[in-house]
Amino acid sequence: MSLLKNINSPLDLRSLNENDLPQLAQELRDFIIEVVSTKEGHLGASLGVVELTIALHYVFNTPNDQLIWDVGHQAYGHKILTGRKEIFESNRRLNGISGFPKRAESEYDAFGVGHSSTSISAALGMAIASNLKGEIEKQHIAVIGDASIASGMAFEGLNHAGVTDANLLVILNDNAIGIDPSVGALKQYLTNVKKGGAREENIFEALNFEYSGPIDGHDLSAVIAELNRLKDIKGPKFLHVITTKGKGLQKAEENQVQYHAPGKFDKTTGELKPRILNGDESPKYQDVFGHTIVELAEKNEKIIGITPAMPTGSSLKYMMEAMPDRAIDVGIAEQHAVTLAAGMVTQGMVVFCNIYSTFLQRAYDQVIHDVALQNLPVIFCLDRAGLVGQDGATHHGVFDIAYLRCIPNLIIFEPMNESELRNIMYTAQLGLDNPIAIRYPRGRGMLTNWKTSFEKIDIGTARKLNDGHKVAVLSLGHIGNSIAKLTEDKNLHNAIAHYSMRFVKPLDEKMLHHIFSNYKYVVTIENGSKIGGFGSAVIEFASEHQYKNDIKVFGVPDEFIEHGSVSELQQIARIDMESVKKHIQKIME
Amino acid sequence: MSLLKNINSPLDLRSLNENDLPQLAQELRDFIIEVVSTKEGHLGASLGVVELTIALHYVFNTPNDQLIWDVGHQAYGHKILTGRKEIFESNRRLNGISGFPKRAESEYDAFGVGHSSTSISAALGMAIASNLKGEIEKQHIAVIGDASIASGMAFEGLNHAGVTDANLLVILNDNAIGIDPSVGALKQYLTNVKKGGAREENIFEALNFEYSGPIDGHDLSAVIAELNRLKDIKGPKFLHVITTKGKGLQKAEENQVQYHAPGKFDKTTGELKPRILNGDESPKYQDVFGHTIVELAEKNEKIIGITPAMPTGSSLKYMMEAMPDRAIDVGIAEQHAVTLAAGMVTQGMVVFCNIYSTFLQRAYDQVIHDVALQNLPVIFCLDRAGLVGQDGATHHGVFDIAYLRCIPNLIIFEPMNESELRNIMYTAQLGLDNPIAIRYPRGRGMLTNWKTSFEKIDIGTARKLNDGHKVAVLSLGHIGNSIAKLTEDKNLHNAIAHYSMRFVKPLDEKMLHHIFSNYKYVVTIENGSKIGGFGSAVIEFASEHQYKNDIKVFGVPDEFIEHGSVSELQQIARIDMESVKKHIQKIME
Repeated sequence: MSLLKNINSPLDLRSLNENDLPQLAQELRDFIIEVVSTKEGHLGASLGVVELTIALHYVFNTPNDQLIWDVGHQAYGHKILTGRKEIFESNRRLNGISGFPKRAESEYDAFGVGHSSTSISAALGMAIASNLKGEIEKQHIAVIGDASIASGMAFEGLNHAGVTDANLLVILNDNAIGIDPSVGALKQYLTNVKKGGAREENIFEALNFEYSGPIDGHDLSAVIAELNRLKDIKGPKFLHVITTKGKGLQKAEENQVQYHAPGKFDKTTGELKPRILNGDESPKYQDVFGHTIVELAEKNEKIIGITPAMPTGSSLKYMMEAMPDRAIDVGIAEQHAVTLAAGMVTQGMVVFCNIYSTFLQRAYDQVIHDVALQNLPVIFCLDRAGLVGQDGATHHGVFDIAYLRCIPNLIIFEPMNESELRNIMYTAQLGLDNPIAIRYPRGRGMLTNWKTSFEKIDIGTARKLNDGHKVAVLSLGHIGNSIAKLTEDKNLHNAIAHYSMRFVKPLDEKMLHHIFSNYKYVVTIENGSKIGGFGSAVIEFASEHQYKNDIKVFGVPDEFIEHGSVSELQQIARIDMESVKKHIQKIME
Repeated sequence: MSLLKNINSPLDLRSLNENDLPQLAQELRDFIIEVVSTKEGHLGASLGVVELTIALHYVFNTPNDQLIWDVGHQAYGHKILTGRKEIFESNRRLNGISGFPKRAESEYDAFGVGHSSTSISAALGMAIASNLKGEIEKQHIAVIGDASIASGMAFEGLNHAGVTDANLLVILNDNAIGIDPSVGALKQYLTNVKKGGAREENIFEALNFEYSGPIDGHDLSAVIAELNRLKDIKGPKFLHVITTKGKGLQKAEENQVQYHAPGKFDKTTGELKPRILNGDESPKYQDVFGHTIVELAEKNEKIIGITPAMPTGSSLKYMMEAMPDRAIDVGIAEQHAVTLAAGMVTQGMVVFCNIYSTFLQRAYDQVIHDVALQNLPVIFCLDRAGLVGQDGATHHGVFDIAYLRCIPNLIIFEPMNESELRNIMYTAQLGLDNPIAIRYPRGRGMLTNWKTSFEKIDIGTARKLNDGHKVAVLSLGHIGNSIAKLTEDKNLHNAIAHYSMRFVKPLDEKMLHHIFSNYKYVVTIENGSKIGGFGSAVIEFASEHQYKNDIKVFGVPDEFIEHGSVSELQQIARIDMESVKKHIQKIME
């Protein structure tokens, strides 16, 4: 690491001779592998852009020139070269650096990212601003992958940029894969271009970009030469770079999906370190979804599964393998996914549309306008609802209850365990009168023997789990397991009446009338935003019916929560068991 | 009208000889002009597709074949030919037919529309479903304009369709205009194609569509012949049709923006009927925005204005005329508009991003992820907030408070009159620490002398407008004027303490403590969703601070409200003056 150890900023990088850069690339690659092999994180994307990262900071005058990494999984090399080498091992941990570029973290992080396809719009905004300020030499660069550029938002950015004279350079980092392999017609088209099948004018030229490429993104001198050439061309430019995800670690090149974020591995061989499993470990909610939809679809031929670019993350991959015609990865296209589902439902299909809670924000209008307004019974499975842990502020699924609750016709449910997830999926595919949103968290459930037989759930019914005389605790979904645990405490067992409410909408009003008539103290807890969430629904009910009970709402407070482990973040948000316990003890005093 | 009078469904149409169709087209055009000239509504779009509409129903087997009109402004001819001729004059009125295709209204309306760019996704969903059901002869047609196809969602649909064998026909209705003239690189490209400048392979072929055209959309026999040819081709097909918006009414062809929805006009000459104005009429909020941003931008050179395709509707057109470099129409691209604004703000610009409340639903993720999370002080102006009237359920801006309130860092404000709109715009451009959403309704304000001098508004402060001893009424924004009127009633004047709260977030907590400490009865009123809205914020405050007052929330109930006049709809939603009055009288008894 003789070169890398002296690089504390891009200034140091620029003082190197161009001949030294291949060695620096090797050192940077080794450093990323070394740290990620023990500290975990995203691997393949950053390995693929080592040369591009070095070239960009070598040629351009960052941070004055604005460099935006779309999504940001690929920005580890960027972070290491821009002063964060020493703290890189704190990546994704509580109080450590973020796994994504973040403005508050460094002046080199021109724009915070996490969700895909924002980079072109942001860079164009900067470029137009620079023009207005007369800063005509300033460069604005968006680095975007082939999966992300196929998302509608990226097209909107390109379409606008092409009629401006903005000093914008879009670099397509084309490795034919996002987290899962890229899909769609544009991807096929890019494959053609790479094979030399490009026609007289390509799509990007048609949109008024000065196009160059494709070039080999691992050929440092070629990349540097091309960036130097493009630097002097005004207006919107498009550079097509071919890279290999996982470059430099054989196993990561061969198993690109697995090595997107591989967990711990041997830094030399790439061999994954097996996770030590208890024999009786609970399954991930994701796998419960993935296996259950296959089980249901085998019997109900109308079932279709849709994922926008998350077959592995959502576990829809099991259905894609078992019945490829009926399980569809539409790419990073949440808007399209939702309206596609709505269209299918008009033809009598039973559609499970699986989208991460945080990404459903991308299709909010479609949920309202195309699904709920027409009351089409699409079954939304909102994966990674609540605080997600290490991915941090950009990825927490904490707003869904608040933003969905105001939508007429929509049912909102959160299962408390694997069995309830299975049963609500079973219930939904039997045919509901309304669309439903089923939210569940990232990670493991509570049961070991989870593959229980199906039972129908009555819409809008809560469950009473413990009887108690002093405080009614109303929990929503998985987080109710901490309340269940609390009621095992012998000092609290007789005090806490625990209700698992399950449905945010429709609320179990009969149960609520009973609760408000019998308990002075009511507590609600949810893994979601306190403002407008489940607790707020309970408060609205109480107000509407003139109940004057004391209500305490536990939910995620009105701030963006950063990264850390889920349990650390639940403590910070005060939705952990201890926080509830203290509150109840105070009441009991 | 010898032919049209006998057409009660497409079956009747199909029994005509093809030679008779030009006459039918003339009659249909005359009928649309006759009705719209007195009953008002959208004109130009439907006149432009008269021949296409006849051809589609003539060639295809609707309603078994699925026909989707993107946005739906152009579907009047479709409605008239599909059994709604007799009730067409009830268009857009309370209990009348909707101004847009709507599934509940007719089996010929395959998919409800209103917002743009949904048709390709919906039709593709139907087509995939038909394939799975073995209905391989069934046709699925999306008719989409050149403004709508440039929106990201449409690209997502095309990108997916191109890798399927779905029986999908996308018809591009290319008239070079949406509501305002189309913009963007794709539009320039389409113009080239029309001029015969098409290259070997065009964009749609690159996306795997069988492309044909451009053809003259007013040449009935050409359109019919081409549709007949395409009917027998499997897989995704793309037909490029050139039409003239307003076709057949000279003034509408010449003034396409004005005749999009011209109000009343002379059916023969096209001459607009002048609205009868009081000398002392208040201005539209839209014009207050449009003139005020120019006034501010003349002094503050950092100000930029952005609209996604609504320069006329939002009145940003005034700034686009006065300072074209700094006022930007980005086309139907709300997602891009928001992140573009965020990018500009990072470079020190002061950006007013004007988006209709209902369309901001399209950019919800960008507001959270690109603006609020980074705490970039973008100034959102949410036009047409609240119930909008005749455009109906697809267009009401009633969810914004609920979906924005859960977002950390965001300020939410609604002015009660023109002066407050001006002052909050003035305040915002001075530089805020946070992004702000300023919502205001469609239509006229309250003042005649509205161009008042600027005063800074303290963030998070309410105003007391009337003193009273019995009930505190907390109003949000413009609807507070009905409360102000109510306090003029001599029987209520001394009873109602009226507070114009203005800020949904941050709430004026000092004022609220005062109110809850002094009034047993508290009433809130807002022009927005009752669930999760302003009233809910007040209830959350009361609950948090253990106030036990009686609170009554007036807001839009948990259902989709249809079309009608704003005052009719406010009565239906029970947010009219009478409803509040009755409640207060009941308290006083």
